[in-house]
Amino acid sequence: MNLDFLFYPRSVAVIGASNKEGKIGNSIMKSILREFNGKVYPINIKEKEVLGLKAYKSILDVPEKVDVAVIAVPAKFVPDVIDQCGQKGVKGAVVISAGFKEAGRADLEEELVRRARKWGIRLVGPNCLGVTNLENGFDCNFNPPERQARPHFGTIAFMSQSGAFGAAILDWAAKHEVGMSKFVSLGNMADLDESDFIEYLKDDEKTRVITLYLEGVKDGKKFLKAAKDTTKVKPVVVLKSGRTEAGAKAAASHTGSLAGSYAIYEAAFEQTGVLGARSMRQLFNFAKALAMQPPAKGDRIAIVTNGGGAGVMMSDGIIEAGMKIAELSEETKQKFERDIKEKKLPEHMSYKNPIDIIGDAPSTRYEIAMRYALEDPNVDALVVIALFQSPALDEGIVEKVAALQKYGKPIIFVAPGGEYPERMARRIEKGGVPVFETVEDGVDAVYALVKYGRHIYGF
Amino acid sequence: MNLDFLFYPRSVAVIGASNKEGKIGNSIMKSILREFNGKVYPINIKEKEVLGLKAYKSILDVPEKVDVAVIAVPAKFVPDVIDQCGQKGVKGAVVISAGFKEAGRADLEEELVRRARKWGIRLVGPNCLGVTNLENGFDCNFNPPERQARPHFGTIAFMSQSGAFGAAILDWAAKHEVGMSKFVSLGNMADLDESDFIEYLKDDEKTRVITLYLEGVKDGKKFLKAAKDTTKVKPVVVLKSGRTEAGAKAAASHTGSLAGSYAIYEAAFEQTGVLGARSMRQLFNFAKALAMQPPAKGDRIAIVTNGGGAGVMMSDGIIEAGMKIAELSEETKQKFERDIKEKKLPEHMSYKNPIDIIGDAPSTRYEIAMRYALEDPNVDALVVIALFQSPALDEGIVEKVAALQKYGKPIIFVAPGGEYPERMARRIEKGGVPVFETVEDGVDAVYALVKYGRHIYGF
Repeated sequence: MNLDFLFYPRSVAVIGASNKEGKIGNSIMKSILREFNGKVYPINIKEKEVLGLKAYKSILDVPEKVDVAVIAVPAKFVPDVIDQCGQKGVKGAVVISAGFKEAGRADLEEELVRRARKWGIRLVGPNCLGVTNLENGFDCNFNPPERQARPHFGTIAFMSQSGAFGAAILDWAAKHEVGMSKFVSLGNMADLDESDFIEYLKDDEKTRVITLYLEGVKDGKKFLKAAKDTTKVKPVVVLKSGRTEAGAKAAASHTGSLAGSYAIYEAAFEQTGVLGARSMRQLFNFAKALAMQPPAKGDRIAIVTNGGGAGVMMSDGIIEAGMKIAELSEETKQKFERDIKEKKLPEHMSYKNPIDIIGDAPSTRYEIAMRYALEDPNVDALVVIALFQSPALDEGIVEKVAALQKYGKPIIFVAPGGEYPERMARRIEKGGVPVFETVEDGVDAVYALVKYGRHIYGF
Repeated sequence: MNLDFLFYPRSVAVIGASNKEGKIGNSIMKSILREFNGKVYPINIKEKEVLGLKAYKSILDVPEKVDVAVIAVPAKFVPDVIDQCGQKGVKGAVVISAGFKEAGRADLEEELVRRARKWGIRLVGPNCLGVTNLENGFDCNFNPPERQARPHFGTIAFMSQSGAFGAAILDWAAKHEVGMSKFVSLGNMADLDESDFIEYLKDDEKTRVITLYLEGVKDGKKFLKAAKDTTKVKPVVVLKSGRTEAGAKAAASHTGSLAGSYAIYEAAFEQTGVLGARSMRQLFNFAKALAMQPPAKGDRIAIVTNGGGAGVMMSDGIIEAGMKIAELSEETKQKFERDIKEKKLPEHMSYKNPIDIIGDAPSTRYEIAMRYALEDPNVDALVVIALFQSPALDEGIVEKVAALQKYGKPIIFVAPGGEYPERMARRIEKGGVPVFETVEDGVDAVYALVKYGRHIYGF
C-alpha cells in the first residue's frame, strides 16, 4: 500500500481555512505554510483571501488538481465535503474535525466512510491532528509551535491513537533532539488504521524504526500480518496502554477501543517480533537505539565504565532485563594484564566485566578498553558509561567511540549528569552512537538491540 | 549523633592544598573558597601562599582553632596527618585520599582508624569526594563546576557509596533544578557509615527526605535501627545496587561490599519503612514528591487530564504499582452532571475516573474538576495531567493548582513535552506542587506518597 500521496502531496486544499486567530482552520493553514513548498488552496465560503492566499468557496472552484484535502469544518458538513473532494479527484482526505463516533455519532462516521469509498478517497481520522511529514514540512497539526515544537527530520516514524499524547511526544522529541520522519495522528481510524500505516512505513526509505502509541488494534488479523511482514525489514515498537482493567475501562471511554487482555497483545508481539514498550521513555529509548545501531547478534554484553557504581547498576539492569554479562575470553584478559604490566593501564582497574577503568580515565584508556571488548568473540554488544564529571575524561572520547563502530557490533553510550554530558552526548550522537542520560535508559537501549537481534538472527 | 561540626565548620584546614592546576588539592581549595564563608587554612610544606591565602607547613602551625581537616595527601602520610589533627583538636577529618582498602591496603585503613579513634576524630572516607553542604557552601568536592554543577540549596539530602555516581547525580540535580540540602560521598566508610549519616540527617531541620545510593550496608543491625527510627520522622529512599549475582560481583570488586541477597534488603526496607528505588530516576521521583507533598492517607487516586491517552496510561501505571483508581462518590458524580447540564462543563467529557476534561480545557475547567476530585471523600491523592501543547490551556493553571493544596491531600502534576511545559513546570513547582515529565515519573511520585503514607498511617 503506497500512501505517498498523503505524505508528499503536490497540492493541498484546506477546507475550513480561516483568517481568524484561534480557529483551527487558521492554525492548520499556518502549520502547512510554515515549511511546505507544495501548492496550498484555502477553501472558505466567505473570504476572498486567507493568510494572503486566494481563497475558494469550494474545492470545486480550485483551478488546478488537488492531491489532498485537509478538512476542518463542523462534522455534519464533512460527508458533503467528501463528495466535492471526490468530484475534484482528491486521493486523500485528512479529517481533523471531531464530532463523529467519539461523540456518539457513529452514524455520521459510517456515512463519511461510505462517501469516501464511493470516490476511492482514503481517509485519515476523523478526530485527529492529521499527518506531519518532517521531511517536506507537510504539517496539518493545529497546535502552534510555541506550544508544541516539531522535531527535526530523522528516521523514527511515530503514530498515535491519542492526538494529545502524540502532540506531547513531538514536543518532547524536539526538546530531546530525537529526529522523526513522519507522524500520524490516527484519530478514529474510520478508514486507514495503524496496520495500513505500518505497511506503508515498511517500505518508506526515510523510516528506520516504526513506533506506535495504541490503546487497541482495529483489526487483529490485519495487525498480525502487517507486523510480521514489517519486522522482517525494520523494527516496530508499540506502547500499548489499557493493560490493566482500569486502563482498559479508561481506553473504552477514550477511543472506544476494546483494549483486550494485555497477555494476548504480549503473545502477539512476541510472535511477530514487535517490541512492546511499557512507558513513553522506554518507547523512545528503544527507538533511538534501533534507529542508530545495528541489532545485536547475541545477548552477551560488555560494559566499560569510569565509575564502579554505574557499572554495578548496569550489570543489575542487564541481568534483570534477561541479558547476559559477557564472560571475557582468556585472550582479552591477557591483553589487559599485559597492558597493566606495561603501565599502559592502571594497576587498580578491573578487567572483569564490567571493565572499570576508574575515575581518572582519559579517552585513550577508554579507547583501549572499548577496543579489547569489541575484539572479544564473547562480546555481542558494548555499553560505554562515561561520568564526564571527572575532568580527566577528555573530549577525544567523541571520535574514539565513533571509530569503533567499524567492528559492526552495537554500541550504546551512557552519560549521566547535567549540561556538560548533554553537550558531549549530542556530539557523540553525530558520530552515530546513541547516548542515554541514565543507566536505566541505557539498559532499555541495549535490550532493544538484543531483542530485535534475536528476532532477526534467532539466537 | 550530632555531626554539625562536619557540615557547619567555622574553620577548615585543607591538608595538601596546592597552587598547581589539575591537582586535587587545588580543586578542593577552589571548591571550598567558591561559597564558604568560614576560615580556610591551606596546609602545604613548600608554599607560602595558596590561592592568595597564607599557607602553613603543618596544621600545628595554624594560629587558630580548626574544626575540620580536609585531607588530600598520599595515603601513606594520612595516619601521621591524623595525629597532627588530633594534637590540634580537630573534630572531623574528611579523607579524600585514595589508596586504602580499595587498593588492597586494608592495613593502612585500619591504622588510619586507630589513630582517629585515639584522638576522638570522626572520619569521612577515605577514598571519597567528601561532604558538600549546599546551605553554607562548604564543599570538598574536587570536580570543577564546569564539569559537575552543584544543585541549589533544597531539602533533599543524598549520600552515595560511589563518588563518581554521586557526582553525576549532583550534576543531574542541578540541571533538573532539584534542590539538595547536604551531600555525602561515603567512600570506604572506615569510620562514619551510612547509618551514622541517616541518624544525623533525621534531626537535620534542613533535610526533608534522605536518599542513598548503596551497594551494601556496613552494619545490618545498625542500619535497621537507624532506618526504623528515621522513617518515623522523615522518608528514607534507597537505591540499592548489586541486586543480581552479576551486580553483586561487580559491587564486590568496586567497593568490596557484600551486596547480599536483594530479597533480604527488600524485607528490611519493608519492615523499616524505607522506600527502595530501582533506578536513578525513580530515586529522585520518589524524593521530589516526598520533599514537596504530604504523604497520602490512602491509596485511592483520582486523575484529572485534558488527554484521554495519558489518562489511560496513568490508570495502568497506578494499578501496576499496586494502588487503586478512586471510585468517585455519587455526590461528586452529581456535581459533574449538574455542571454539564448547566454547560459549565462540556458534554463529551468523562467524569468516570480518570476525569477527562478533553483537549480544549482551559484552567477554569481544570479548577472545577480538581476541586470536585479533592472534595470527594473517596479520593486520597490527585494526579493532574496537563498536555500544554493545547493552546486552550492557559497559565491560570499555575495558581489554581497551588491553591488546591488547602485540601491537605497530596497533588502530583504531570506535564509531558518540551520547552513550554518545562517552563510551566518550574512555575507550578514554586507553588509547592511537584511536576513530572512523563506519566511513568508521575506514577513513581504518587507511589512514593502512598507507600510512605501507608508506613506512617498504616492503612
